[in-house]
Amino acid sequence: MTVKQLTLPELVSHCVRLGIPGVGLWREPVQEYGVEAAAALVRDAGLTVTTLCRGGFFTTEGWLDSNRAAIDEAVTLGTDTLVLVSGGLSPSCPDLPAARARIAEAIGELAPYAGERDVRLAIEPLHPMYASDRCAVSTLDQALEIAERFPAEQVGVTVDTYHLWWDDRAPAAVERAGAAGRIHSFQLADWTTPLPAGVLNGRGQLGTGSIDLRAWAELAEKAGWTGPVEVELFNDELWARDGVEVLEETLERFLAV
Amino acid sequence: MTVKQLTLPELVSHCVRLGIPGVGLWREPVQEYGVEAAAALVRDAGLTVTTLCRGGFFTTEGWLDSNRAAIDEAVTLGTDTLVLVSGGLSPSCPDLPAARARIAEAIGELAPYAGERDVRLAIEPLHPMYASDRCAVSTLDQALEIAERFPAEQVGVTVDTYHLWWDDRAPAAVERAGAAGRIHSFQLADWTTPLPAGVLNGRGQLGTGSIDLRAWAELAEKAGWTGPVEVELFNDELWARDGVEVLEETLERFLAV
Repeated sequence: MTVKQLTLPELVSHCVRLGIPGVGLWREPVQEYGVEAAAALVRDAGLTVTTLCRGGFFTTEGWLDSNRAAIDEAVTLGTDTLVLVSGGLSPSCPDLPAARARIAEAIGELAPYAGERDVRLAIEPLHPMYASDRCAVSTLDQALEIAERFPAEQVGVTVDTYHLWWDDRAPAAVERAGAAGRIHSFQLADWTTPLPAGVLNGRGQLGTGSIDLRAWAELAEKAGWTGPVEVELFNDELWARDGVEVLEETLERFLAV
Repeated sequence: MTVKQLTLPELVSHCVRLGIPGVGLWREPVQEYGVEAAAALVRDAGLTVTTLCRGGFFTTEGWLDSNRAAIDEAVTLGTDTLVLVSGGLSPSCPDLPAARARIAEAIGELAPYAGERDVRLAIEPLHPMYASDRCAVSTLDQALEIAERFPAEQVGVTVDTYHLWWDDRAPAAVERAGAAGRIHSFQLADWTTPLPAGVLNGRGQLGTGSIDLRAWAELAEKAGWTGPVEVELFNDELWARDGVEVLEETLERFLAV
């Protein structure tokens, strides 16, 4: 998604050229390309699919079918992790406690289906500014509280610096998640202001914002994380530029921080 | 600030007409009108000044003089509460732990000065989306943790629904703050999306957004709050309308929720 201006074949070939060993994919471009075809493309290039984004949106109609399909797609792609953006308020979940209860319940229904297919669900707490319209799970503590009801190999969390950096309780939660084997995905983005309208597409290029990304990487490492580190930037300015240039710049910055 | 398109005399006369017994003032319009003159205007109309907004911004140069002046202005206006927006990151406070340490230290320097003048400092936690540029104090727990180092009659907190509504730990913190006599100000605004660019001026009119304002009012009441309930809406759309109409609408909605 960081370089969504690239086609899937372009993305894959430039990852290979640059020595990037894996890539996190999003459902929409994969579906457009064809799930089987995308799986073959990535596999034949020798890349791993680090995660599939995203399942979730449990507070809206049709969540069960949509999430089962996402798990099936993860299996086809050969990734072990489906990231969940859990959903916000809705007519049937008009307040946060109701939304959070629904989310926990939905994950309970989904976890065995995922577990049987060796796919781990990674609950991603989103920044509190998304609590009403995207994700009622706003802190890592809340995500863990839900995950801990299920086996770690079925349900864990996504640690994304953009969403968690402000939270003084997050470091302890990362440690707790790591000790329980529940960090299933780790993502970097920097925090820059002013935020754009809608606050969706202003995630900062690594090293240009307020987050001490190196400290977060060390925190994850200390918590036992040895998996891939993804960079997930939604950024209108980056999307308007040449995708290959952005990919190369992102790799440089990744190595620098 | 909710009806900043009104002059101070207009605001005061319409508050009196509508039976609104008190008003929270901001430093800039008060300074423009003249602090003594503003004090006389409000006092002669029989209104109370509920709070003065705002001191703070402790992470930038010149904070001490500016905050002492704000306390002096509060004394002149006859209000017992100065609301603090504590400041974000800065060259001398490049990360959140540094900013939070500076804020606690600054409040320690300021508290006796305020206490000697019977002015209470009310630390306002701001929504985490302001952590980098406005206020590194993002939760009521963090605000209380600082306030509790000082006597309650010197330092307490502001409970503002807009900033706290998403936080599942906030209700317990409100209870704890109330039990210790540390709620010094209580403010309402609703949460509406999409957020505007810069995320400053999109606070929702009461009853138009995601927050259960009645539940928050009950929470504050249960915590022992018997003081004024302020409505603080920063909203470009409301500011573009006739100020008297907005004031009347706000009062209606206030009574309704």
